[in-house]
Amino acid sequence: MKPALGVCYYPEHWDEAVWPEDARRMVAAGLKYVRIGEFAWSRMEPEPGQLDLGWLDRAIAVLGGAGLRVVLGTPTAAPPRWLLDRHPDMLPHDRDGRQRAFGSRRHYDFSHAGYLDDCARIVTILAERYGRNPHIAAWQTDNEYACHDTVLSWSPVSRRAFQDWLAQKYQSPQALNRAWGNVFWSMEYRAFDEIGLPNLTVTEANPAHVLDFRRFASDQVVRFNRVQTDIIHRQSAAPILHNYMGRITDFDHWQVGADMEIAAWDSYPLGFLSDRLETTDSHKQAYLRQGDPDFQAFHHDLYRAVGRGRWWIMEQQPGPVNWAPWNPAPLPGMVRLWTWEAIAHGAEVVSYFRWRQVPYAQEQMHAGLLRPDSQPAPGLDEAALVARELAEIGDLEPAPAPVALVYDYESAWAWEAQPQGRDFDYFRLVFSAYQALRKLGLSVDILPPDVSDLSAYRLVLIPGLACLSGPLKAALPTVGGQVILGPRTNSKTAEMAIPVPLPPALPGLDVTVTRVESLPPGVRHPLADGGAICHWLEHLEGSAPVLARTAEGWPMLVGDARLAYLGGWPDADGWARLVRGAADAVGVATHDLPEGLRLRDTRDWRFALNYGATPVAFDGLTVPGAGLLRWRR
Amino acid sequence: MKPALGVCYYPEHWDEAVWPEDARRMVAAGLKYVRIGEFAWSRMEPEPGQLDLGWLDRAIAVLGGAGLRVVLGTPTAAPPRWLLDRHPDMLPHDRDGRQRAFGSRRHYDFSHAGYLDDCARIVTILAERYGRNPHIAAWQTDNEYACHDTVLSWSPVSRRAFQDWLAQKYQSPQALNRAWGNVFWSMEYRAFDEIGLPNLTVTEANPAHVLDFRRFASDQVVRFNRVQTDIIHRQSAAPILHNYMGRITDFDHWQVGADMEIAAWDSYPLGFLSDRLETTDSHKQAYLRQGDPDFQAFHHDLYRAVGRGRWWIMEQQPGPVNWAPWNPAPLPGMVRLWTWEAIAHGAEVVSYFRWRQVPYAQEQMHAGLLRPDSQPAPGLDEAALVARELAEIGDLEPAPAPVALVYDYESAWAWEAQPQGRDFDYFRLVFSAYQALRKLGLSVDILPPDVSDLSAYRLVLIPGLACLSGPLKAALPTVGGQVILGPRTNSKTAEMAIPVPLPPALPGLDVTVTRVESLPPGVRHPLADGGAICHWLEHLEGSAPVLARTAEGWPMLVGDARLAYLGGWPDADGWARLVRGAADAVGVATHDLPEGLRLRDTRDWRFALNYGATPVAFDGLTVPGAGLLRWRR
Amino acid sequence: MKPALGVCYYPEHWDEAVWPEDARRMVAAGLKYVRIGEFAWSRMEPEPGQLDLGWLDRAIAVLGGAGLRVVLGTPTAAPPRWLLDRHPDMLPHDRDGRQRAFGSRRHYDFSHAGYLDDCARIVTILAERYGRNPHIAAWQTDNEYACHDTVLSWSPVSRRAFQDWLAQKYQSPQALNRAWGNVFWSMEYRAFDEIGLPNLTVTEANPAHVLDFRRFASDQVVRFNRVQTDIIHRQSAAPILHNYMGRITDFDHWQVGADMEIAAWDSYPLGFLSDRLETTDSHKQAYLRQGDPDFQAFHHDLYRAVGRGRWWIMEQQPGPVNWAPWNPAPLPGMVRLWTWEAIAHGAEVVSYFRWRQVPYAQEQMHAGLLRPDSQPAPGLDEAALVARELAEIGDLEPAPAPVALVYDYESAWAWEAQPQGRDFDYFRLVFSAYQALRKLGLSVDILPPDVSDLSAYRLVLIPGLACLSGPLKAALPTVGGQVILGPRTNSKTAEMAIPVPLPPALPGLDVTVTRVESLPPGVRHPLADGGAICHWLEHLEGSAPVLARTAEGWPMLVGDARLAYLGGWPDADGWARLVRGAADAVGVATHDLPEGLRLRDTRDWRFALNYGATPVAFDGLTVPGAGLLRWRR
Repeated sequence: MKPALGVCYYPEHWDEAVWPEDARRMVAAGLKYVRIGEFAWSRMEPEPGQLDLGWLDRAIAVLGGAGLRVVLGTPTAAPPRWLLDRHPDMLPHDRDGRQRAFGSRRHYDFSHAGYLDDCARIVTILAERYGRNPHIAAWQTDNEYACHDTVLSWSPVSRRAFQDWLAQKYQSPQALNRAWGNVFWSMEYRAFDEIGLPNLTVTEANPAHVLDFRRFASDQVVRFNRVQTDIIHRQSAAPILHNYMGRITDFDHWQVGADMEIAAWDSYPLGFLSDRLETTDSHKQAYLRQGDPDFQAFHHDLYRAVGRGRWWIMEQQPGPVNWAPWNPAPLPGMVRLWTWEAIAHGAEVVSYFRWRQVPYAQEQMHAGLLRPDSQPAPGLDEAALVARELAEIGDLEPAPAPVALVYDYESAWAWEAQPQGRDFDYFRLVFSAYQALRKLGLSVDILPPDVSDLSAYRLVLIPGLACLSGPLKAALPTVGGQVILGPRTNSKTAEMAIPVPLPPALPGLDVTVTRVESLPPGVRHPLADGGAICHWLEHLEGSAPVLARTAEGWPMLVGDARLAYLGGWPDADGWARLVRGAADAVGVATHDLPEGLRLRDTRDWRFALNYGATPVAFDGLTVPGAGLLRWRR
Repeated sequence: MKPALGVCYYPEHWDEAVWPEDARRMVAAGLKYVRIGEFAWSRMEPEPGQLDLGWLDRAIAVLGGAGLRVVLGTPTAAPPRWLLDRHPDMLPHDRDGRQRAFGSRRHYDFSHAGYLDDCARIVTILAERYGRNPHIAAWQTDNEYACHDTVLSWSPVSRRAFQDWLAQKYQSPQALNRAWGNVFWSMEYRAFDEIGLPNLTVTEANPAHVLDFRRFASDQVVRFNRVQTDIIHRQSAAPILHNYMGRITDFDHWQVGADMEIAAWDSYPLGFLSDRLETTDSHKQAYLRQGDPDFQAFHHDLYRAVGRGRWWIMEQQPGPVNWAPWNPAPLPGMVRLWTWEAIAHGAEVVSYFRWRQVPYAQEQMHAGLLRPDSQPAPGLDEAALVARELAEIGDLEPAPAPVALVYDYESAWAWEAQPQGRDFDYFRLVFSAYQALRKLGLSVDILPPDVSDLSAYRLVLIPGLACLSGPLKAALPTVGGQVILGPRTNSKTAEMAIPVPLPPALPGLDVTVTRVESLPPGVRHPLADGGAICHWLEHLEGSAPVLARTAEGWPMLVGDARLAYLGGWPDADGWARLVRGAADAVGVATHDLPEGLRLRDTRDWRFALNYGATPVAFDGLTVPGAGLLRWRR
Repeated sequence: MKPALGVCYYPEHWDEAVWPEDARRMVAAGLKYVRIGEFAWSRMEPEPGQLDLGWLDRAIAVLGGAGLRVVLGTPTAAPPRWLLDRHPDMLPHDRDGRQRAFGSRRHYDFSHAGYLDDCARIVTILAERYGRNPHIAAWQTDNEYACHDTVLSWSPVSRRAFQDWLAQKYQSPQALNRAWGNVFWSMEYRAFDEIGLPNLTVTEANPAHVLDFRRFASDQVVRFNRVQTDIIHRQSAAPILHNYMGRITDFDHWQVGADMEIAAWDSYPLGFLSDRLETTDSHKQAYLRQGDPDFQAFHHDLYRAVGRGRWWIMEQQPGPVNWAPWNPAPLPGMVRLWTWEAIAHGAEVVSYFRWRQVPYAQEQMHAGLLRPDSQPAPGLDEAALVARELAEIGDLEPAPAPVALVYDYESAWAWEAQPQGRDFDYFRLVFSAYQALRKLGLSVDILPPDVSDLSAYRLVLIPGLACLSGPLKAALPTVGGQVILGPRTNSKTAEMAIPVPLPPALPGLDVTVTRVESLPPGVRHPLADGGAICHWLEHLEGSAPVLARTAEGWPMLVGDARLAYLGGWPDADGWARLVRGAADAVGVATHDLPEGLRLRDTRDWRFALNYGATPVAFDGLTVPGAGLLRWRR
């Protein structure tokens, strides 16, 4: 595979006269892909039914003619104002029931049938017009599903669609009552149209009610996206992708991704560090201008799996952004480092957002590769440098990862519905395991919850998976080493109830979770050999051999060399100790990496990436601050 | 009195076939009472008017037949979904005016006349059917009034009822305008139907308006409960109780309690420590698995008074719960300790919530005496141990307490309406005094604000009582030792105004509060002899002798050996010094108890209860951690 | 000029029989002005159209007859309840769209035409009746515009008025789309009635949309006030004032002030310290009973400029208030100190709020000069002492200030719309500069953003001014020393876009801001010579000489002896160093003042005011704690 670079461009923002020069400069910088179109509905169709696509024809011609490969976005994330006259109830509602307003983006309810028809109409127009255009390299559907908390809409439209979804699933109210346990608190329904959304209840709603609403909402995203992919697939041979975001769990990316050839995501390391990571202030300060060393890698591995091997970065932060609580600038070198980190994880394309900083509207403070005055911004040189380095390095082929981590969206919803401890969060739990693996220098694969073969892996971690699927349960014995499940794994039925017999109910492992405890911040139960259990602690009983205990002597890791269960949430040292021990046992080599340094292997190369601001020594080499080295494996 | 144990049971949650075995096991564990029925309306009346009580007949027969005494709950805390079709406006509204939704419990507005009629109807049906059933030992009305913030409803229904209540109270808008001082800011009304609820005002509402709304809302609870007690009393000789909660001040428990024979409360020590106590993180960590050493005792003393001597624990936490911010498990021994603490305070019955952990719906993570798989949970053995100990100890008779504390709900509303300092809270103030008394080893009685005889007490504390009632003012000279009033005591008229002459206006005590100050956290005024004043500081003038001063020389406690006024809110050391001094002066013996240890006396026994995790020495004895000793006085 | 004292009085709150004695005691205390009437609409017009002004006639006669000069307030801040029957939609709506309720004050929408008509009617009645009354010394319009967040109303009434305002400004939707950059995210409008208010959008609204809404809302205040001033000016020769508040940026005080002869403000030093200042807990504790040493002075200087030299304090805190998070009492001496600080800054009148503490309604805990029982409160003696000192000192004439600071309301709105860092706040930035000047002992003038002549000043600071006006840009070369602009100065066009060429685009200064960074708390970039940059950091390029750098060597202050640009937000030490350096360079003498001490010069006197609680030494003198000294310059 030959990775390439790209950029996001908005021809409608600039005078047509500058397009050719922009295209020429993109090519000169070594960029090969350009994404356009995804917010331009009001220019494509300025009045209802009156299309104006001439400018888009010309933009594609200019860009393609300059040698760029075009990614064309459908414009459905930004419906024009006149669509609201046609569909006054298409706006989503927030959790308080208030209608959200026009004036930014993503102002639509995934359940609105009329809006979905209009989306099909505009996508059909674009697919028919450009489906066989030779400059079109790929399609993007919509933009960043779920961004701005838009998957869950608490509207009458959504309520009616949810009732239909429930009727389809349960067929009778009695079946639903049984599944949810509605005899509790007299919550029984006599008809599907009696059922509301699980908001504004006097105290918490039934978690089974919440979980079904989350499944419904995710299914609406799948349905919405599939309408577009079906149309495009009929008209075009070009692959389709969607640009996902970081730490979004509101819909099932595995299911949405199954309808497309490529998975892409938008990588904003500094914004995410400021906005989306539970960590200490000192960690945030140490990586203020570099981003967290593991957050991007996690998503690279996730979306590589969602894309079944094919994945892109559609938007790469090239300088300060505008939307995080605070918006510092990257250290010199970081744009290059982020790009190489993605490529080392197998990205086909890394595309920067955006070409030129736009001086007006919401994103005017978001840096581009060019400044608003068309002068080069610092990111441009780094991108051009990577383009030259890519030309030198040639083909890059993936290497198999020795360890894997199972990641599941339903579990995120389940624990959000019933955290039991205020700060229990599924992503945080899984990411804590991922950080431990990566700090040991390991390359990791992320697997879906219905994976049916684990034989390629020597170590598989399955933390917090609410309900083990049949395929995965069957796959456990296939592991090429050891599987470690827990905490909380398999502790719920598909109906969000506690299973009897009690969890984890794993064949061949005599352990029962007899009681669980959530622990407030500051409460630690040290492990006998280093590290501690925090947040979550389970009482384990049974005859399974004890592999690790707390200082009090309580069993925490039980099982054998193939199958083990972990009864708590380890802190960073605890994870490190447990994972290193498991890796040693199955013969996977680990590294004791200096702070800020991370490794990533491809078939031929080892990359050492230093997220720290100052140089670090590793293996006899010195990796520069905010820089990287690579050598042949 | 022979205290007994009980348990809460939900026959509708389980197959009828297991009821006999459940009943047998309850009896085997030494349990004598079983509460049922209080959330089962949808099973009692699955369709409007179609009753199905056969299952309830059989459940009572099975349980009663096994030798258990049944407490039957009215199901009005969980109206079935079909009632909303009959009364679409029966749902309460939150402070923002949003209608709260069906899907959990307590989804009714206390002011809704139609719902109240339906409650009367179902209670009449139950009372007529079971009023003379020999297995029925007691009745419970509804469940945990006020839980989930449901006393105050900001609905049109509530508004109209409030207008009627005001018309009844004031008779003319002019009288109301005068009482509230509505000439201020042109707030005068010309008719009762012009008056709204005191929410969503541009800035704070008139505190007199707020206070009357709080009185109204409390009266609606009294009225709601009385409809049920009137019906039951006509049909049944069994006593009636309601299960109150901890730290609930939204309605006047003295008034609600006056209509019933017994007061009960639901004791969740770990949940309350996590959720309802202003304290330090280190205190929360030290008592994480034991609960606060004084919080339960305060409520035992309170509800003993509300029940005029007769009180129960209707729900005792038997393991981890599901609803607090964090939910740890009790230390081994604590279920026994909590039970004995209640019994030592005079509880007739301690009933655990619940028999078997239900695997579905909102409370699936709430422990029971049995696990979901019907195996014993750790609490069961401790309950059974207490049952055996109770059999040994035989009769337990109360001892008179030497000190008392006056507790008043109107004052809580008054200071919530006008805290003057952001963290001023009535419960917190009273509880700080209670903690000081109990840390000195004292048994305490709690008294209502209209108590008319204090002769039984050597020391009476009356902190923060907004408006001294006539009876209490007359009772002050009856004290058998010293009364200490203040801070803020008698500083408001019944109309929520500042009285002239200025407070505290106590006959025989020449002291005037000329100015008050609220103090932010961290500001302390040390007392000359130890401890400090925090939160609240009054400037006192007058000729009354000064009993204690701040380091600056400001008088803080003034008066004489019978009547004294306290002009500030002491911290823990300050309270300890003041209370010990007063106790010494009136000849009440105090103890210097080690951290975590508490004492409680009955007529024949002294109990020493250790809330600490490790053993402590006292009086030559060693009290085990999370354990207790008792000896004959 | 001979400064005088006054007081706020509410004859409608008290029995008419006590008015003469109250008037006599006011005069005896040395008070010369009395403000009345501003919340008495329900007494002036108890029923629609039925006027009752006899009591007001008599009150004016009694007060005036005793020798007091009367300030008469229009009562429009407290519309009576019956006006809501006439105009049910006159209530403002909060940002969530909820209608705010009657029951306090300021319950009107500035855009409501019908309410404005009623205001004109009542003001006309008062102006005609009292316009030539010899006791009337001045008029006050309404009360504390913007208090309780009332400038921005998110109502249908406001929306329609905003659409009209936009149509007037832009003439065509196309022009508006271009100005706002609505091609971004397909936000283009086809008609003005499609445009909503910028709330409840899915993600942030276009900052140009927000900024125009803020301008509109400010214009509505100007319009509302002008209706009143036009009427009064026609009927009365007495000057008009409005009583502004502290740290209110929701409307343009320069524009509102232009229609009146005098600017007044309401000075609550302890309330403001508790409520409106970003500072450390230790600072808040050190000045708990004195107030911040600079907050009042800033507003004195601001409102002196708004009043074009004529300004009053309409309400001076005389003791504890009721409305701040915590409400301590002033140290003895502080009421006198605050009064003198105002007089030293040129106040014509300092008027205390209020005469007698009212025992009922919302402000019953707000101290007056008298206690509720009519005894003197501590503030009365201090006021009387100042009255005697004023009689001694005779005329006080202003001195020219050597330094100036430009202050602009539009910039506050711009940075609120687009802070880029969560804690970036315009007032905070400007005030940090002001604090630095004042800690160096400097007297400061505050200037409007359209000032056109700077020749009177040796040093002018212009931090954070979003868009330099033409007049000010032209005035820069007129400075009598040095102008320092930045950070963020001139970084936006009038349409809230980034200008090209890039900022600051100052003639004669070759510097370009190529990139900006917002920094979270705790991130500091030390300056090479002391102090640090926090919050905000700009990357500066160009050939302008570097006057100061960060420790990393980045240019922070660039320019020359007349014109310089500052590329970051200095902390207190940083500001001190930069300002002292600039003052030295232009020959303005500074002082190294001890903590808590401040200086203020009039033509003949230097005042040294000690906000600390204990005495400090300065210039061979000892200034008492909470006290002041003055000496001839």
